[in-house]
Amino acid sequence: MSGALPPLRTCHRFISLEGGEGAGKSTVLAALRHALEAAGQAVTCTREPGGTPLAEQIRGLLLDTHHEPPAAETELLLMFAARAQHVRETILPALARGEWVISDRFTDASYAYQGAARGGDVAFIAQLEQRVVGIQPAMTLLLDVPVAIGLQRARGRGATDRIEAEREDFFERVREGYLARAAADPARFRVVDASQSAEAVAEAVVAHLRALMERPA
Amino acid sequence: MSGALPPLRTCHRFISLEGGEGAGKSTVLAALRHALEAAGQAVTCTREPGGTPLAEQIRGLLLDTHHEPPAAETELLLMFAARAQHVRETILPALARGEWVISDRFTDASYAYQGAARGGDVAFIAQLEQRVVGIQPAMTLLLDVPVAIGLQRARGRGATDRIEAEREDFFERVREGYLARAAADPARFRVVDASQSAEAVAEAVVAHLRALMERPA
Repeated sequence: MSGALPPLRTCHRFISLEGGEGAGKSTVLAALRHALEAAGQAVTCTREPGGTPLAEQIRGLLLDTHHEPPAAETELLLMFAARAQHVRETILPALARGEWVISDRFTDASYAYQGAARGGDVAFIAQLEQRVVGIQPAMTLLLDVPVAIGLQRARGRGATDRIEAEREDFFERVREGYLARAAADPARFRVVDASQSAEAVAEAVVAHLRALMERPA
Repeated sequence: MSGALPPLRTCHRFISLEGGEGAGKSTVLAALRHALEAAGQAVTCTREPGGTPLAEQIRGLLLDTHHEPPAAETELLLMFAARAQHVRETILPALARGEWVISDRFTDASYAYQGAARGGDVAFIAQLEQRVVGIQPAMTLLLDVPVAIGLQRARGRGATDRIEAEREDFFERVREGYLARAAADPARFRVVDASQSAEAVAEAVVAHLRALMERPA
């Protein structure tokens, strides 16, 4: 198992949105879709865990609060099982049709949640990424917001799933994990201050989108 | 990711049953349970994929014939997700209580089905085994039967699941994969000719069990 694996393939029209709870990803997703469609582009908006019927069933097992919780290793492999399916059944076919793909979370979320927050082995996560994912977005928008503000927003929405019900220090580690990923790959990441108003956040992300659209593929 | 991972821990009272379709695993499981209980031993009989409520739900996704089939990589990760849960929630707790554990299939099945038969990367399967399973049975009984005989028996049982519905050459590769695993680890494997009568097969496996029971832990 030593020896270098092939590098991840960067997909030009593929954008991921990352951020902790209550970062405002849904609003941003709608703004990006609107901007792309206004420019005459076809867009597939999708999410993780999920994005195919089977992957959505796996999401149900992951977020369920009423039955047996998955062990940390089980959670990690279920996330990547759903992602493997999502890439093959939804993301790559949409990109092959010439569409833009915007995913509400992608592999960085596993580094932040299963890696930084749960203490999972980052080298193993990287192995899973290279062996079953193989691609990465051209741009990852990290909506960064202080944990207390994000949780207040998220919990205002009502029922919490299994992961949303974690303690505040868990989300502090998620945030630190995301910021460390962004610092390590500034060419791909755009960090947006999501404690601003929804309008200011949407304006910032659409500006990043326009810069990407002007970049040669 | 180079460097040796820790070796698998062999669990003395842990037995796995392996074999293709129609090898007679259920009959053998009952004979082993009877022999152990007659000797005053507590036994947990379990199966893969499955063996916990969550892992049984994952089994449902894996064997479903009516919806989106999993990609090969998704199948592999779902199998190991279920196994990670099974080891932590069922197998290790039963062994810690001093019970014997007999599992209808374990990790060797992933080498045979997802590796040999589907062409999955064996080095990656070995990584998953070491990182999320960590244990192996003291004895693996491989019930070996020619594919034509096994399929005739299995299909006589009625409805087939997604994996049972594969073509005959798939099961030839499963059989070859199992026999190669057995040849590579003769200290752990016992290969039993399962084309014999059910009584003769049961007698052979119970003899192997008795030899294991007499071995120092």
